[in-house]
Amino acid sequence: MKASIVTIGDEILIGQIVDTNAAWIASVLAEIGILISSKITVGDDKESILNAIRRAFDDADVVLTTGGLGPTKDDITKPALAEYFGGGMQFSPSTFARIEKLFAKRGIPLSESHKQQCHLPAAAEIIVNEMGTAPGMWFEKDDKVLCSMPGVPHEMKHLMINGVLPRLVQSSQVVYRQKTIRTSGMGESVLADLIEPVLEEHDVSIAYLPSQGQVRLRLSKVGVKGEEALLERTLDNAIAAVTQVIEPYVFGFDGETLESFVGKVLQERGLTLGTAESCTGGFIAHMITSVPGASGYFRGSVVAYDNGIKEKVLGVKRNTLEQYGAVSEQTVSEMVSGAITLLECDIAIAVSGISGPSGGTREKPVGTVWIAVGDKNTIVAKRFLFAKDRVVNIKYTANYALDQLRKFLSAR
Amino acid sequence: MKASIVTIGDEILIGQIVDTNAAWIASVLAEIGILISSKITVGDDKESILNAIRRAFDDADVVLTTGGLGPTKDDITKPALAEYFGGGMQFSPSTFARIEKLFAKRGIPLSESHKQQCHLPAAAEIIVNEMGTAPGMWFEKDDKVLCSMPGVPHEMKHLMINGVLPRLVQSSQVVYRQKTIRTSGMGESVLADLIEPVLEEHDVSIAYLPSQGQVRLRLSKVGVKGEEALLERTLDNAIAAVTQVIEPYVFGFDGETLESFVGKVLQERGLTLGTAESCTGGFIAHMITSVPGASGYFRGSVVAYDNGIKEKVLGVKRNTLEQYGAVSEQTVSEMVSGAITLLECDIAIAVSGISGPSGGTREKPVGTVWIAVGDKNTIVAKRFLFAKDRVVNIKYTANYALDQLRKFLSAR
Repeated sequence: MKASIVTIGDEILIGQIVDTNAAWIASVLAEIGILISSKITVGDDKESILNAIRRAFDDADVVLTTGGLGPTKDDITKPALAEYFGGGMQFSPSTFARIEKLFAKRGIPLSESHKQQCHLPAAAEIIVNEMGTAPGMWFEKDDKVLCSMPGVPHEMKHLMINGVLPRLVQSSQVVYRQKTIRTSGMGESVLADLIEPVLEEHDVSIAYLPSQGQVRLRLSKVGVKGEEALLERTLDNAIAAVTQVIEPYVFGFDGETLESFVGKVLQERGLTLGTAESCTGGFIAHMITSVPGASGYFRGSVVAYDNGIKEKVLGVKRNTLEQYGAVSEQTVSEMVSGAITLLECDIAIAVSGISGPSGGTREKPVGTVWIAVGDKNTIVAKRFLFAKDRVVNIKYTANYALDQLRKFLSAR
Repeated sequence: MKASIVTIGDEILIGQIVDTNAAWIASVLAEIGILISSKITVGDDKESILNAIRRAFDDADVVLTTGGLGPTKDDITKPALAEYFGGGMQFSPSTFARIEKLFAKRGIPLSESHKQQCHLPAAAEIIVNEMGTAPGMWFEKDDKVLCSMPGVPHEMKHLMINGVLPRLVQSSQVVYRQKTIRTSGMGESVLADLIEPVLEEHDVSIAYLPSQGQVRLRLSKVGVKGEEALLERTLDNAIAAVTQVIEPYVFGFDGETLESFVGKVLQERGLTLGTAESCTGGFIAHMITSVPGASGYFRGSVVAYDNGIKEKVLGVKRNTLEQYGAVSEQTVSEMVSGAITLLECDIAIAVSGISGPSGGTREKPVGTVWIAVGDKNTIVAKRFLFAKDRVVNIKYTANYALDQLRKFLSAR
């Protein structure tokens, strides 16, 4: 069984928002063995929507659409669906009652556009959207299925998990397994040169997915129902062989992130962490605290954006700042010590750098960053030079800082 | 002139990475009057790629492809392009020389897979990629154009700006203008009910783009070359009329973000800012410091994740924490005062809440957040209840905190 995703909305087509829904839908479908054959994005235009649906059905048995269902007038998806599946539009009293109740609870009066939302294609089976006003709609025609969902991510996810996936999971014939090895600190080409000879003896597919200092290696294999155990075994063998040749760079598997990995290690060892951040402006602390349960090991952070704060709050010596500058081995090392003392943590990360776009010099160009990780006995500091875009530099720095923490923990 | 985007890569199709390139390409093409008619994503499969290219040319005069050009073996885009445009593959000595030089500079030896990258479709005109190894390729056939670019975002952007856009800008006949009004603190439906009556007198299109506490209103109008001034005038009139009826919620226009807006106000008034963050874990500081020049007004932040840090570093009274709890009006108010003293700033933001997934109680369920903004004379604290996903709660909280700062500054 194959699926296509049709994303509807001028705002996506024109690039004003990034389509994160399609990636999420694809990844959950992969888990139940449904492969995506294509994704198509079209604007809020009836002909384009109809065209996209026809094309999507050329490639697939299941078409999932997102978007085009808002309460405002850029909504033309429903009439397009009514035309495609026949039967016209009709008012849905049950949807109206649900919205009325929802708004009464919030104490908000119903607007005209909310009432408009209750006119739905007559051919649709309604899937109740408990997270918002626009309902999900399920259509069947010629043994094929189309499911229309709103574009708001948490509403779409709720509908997928509770309404759509349970209906799809029964009918899939293909079996697909994938496992991902997660690495940091080494580039795609070097990893490939190490891995390719090993993989010749394993019948699996591999994809290299680099991003900001990390490379994910996705190994996958397709089969049919009944072969699940074989696929799992083949993948496990390949994963073991690949992991062996690139061991120093592997920090985890599948959904594990660098921040959840270091969090797990800290938690297991009963160690606490703090950060002292200059150029990253709190982004390292944000990554760490994105992990549920971070309060078990993360004490806090000082974002010392101003040099005065580095001195006053973190205790970096004025002399150090004057002699070596804020972006130096000496400063980040003193920031580590200051953070350990102030935040009463076992280990601290400190970073200071020039994110750009201005502030660079010949000796320290934009993108120059010092990263230090240490405890009360040992501090390891390293200098890096990253790309030249401010936000990219911040993200690279945070990833490399977490990688440095990983190495520090593994050597400790 | 219309364009289609074809994004190539199993990693995109399968949802392991989110396609941010397509949105960026669409937005820069819109600026030169080239509208996107569709976006198609396909996997690393020759037939699918050829199919997508054919479909894309059905809708468009220009097709831009990204991805499928990495140094590892998931690369099959080039042979597909060679087949579509004819002429087979050939070795490009100039590309090889450039890669050799690039790697010599970095002190990295060339790998086999890098040499492989220099085999390119013979029909391609090469656009030099100064940011990486995979070159851009420009093809022409039957008055239509295809341009192939690597998928790495900063490489693609560099190629677009320096190689592709200058070639496209000359031949466009359509003129398109859009302006965006940026609002925060009010929902899409209420805004629509205020705006729709006003817009009846203005011949422009509107789209509502909600995200995490903000709604962008994109007004647009299409015309032909020579009508630029008329389009601008029509849009300006509509923007003025719309802005008037929703004035309390408007913080900026076009690319202005809430964080850049408050930054601009702080800078103009010579005020400094600090943050004291609990549940947001540094994300507010990250948003503020994503703006170039933030060091002109942002002093720093204390991420007081642990209650001990709230007490010791920010001076929140132990009695306050015990009597009212960490998530309370009293605690966030004391965090504001503590941050102003410690960080020596004029204004501080403080937040404390329960991000989830655990930690909620009946009185304070997951998603409960207190946000305070204040200076040394006045502190305004408010309680919110957000959705139930940890990362979403963090982002909503940060957006509402910045909105609260905006209101505080406007009343000050």
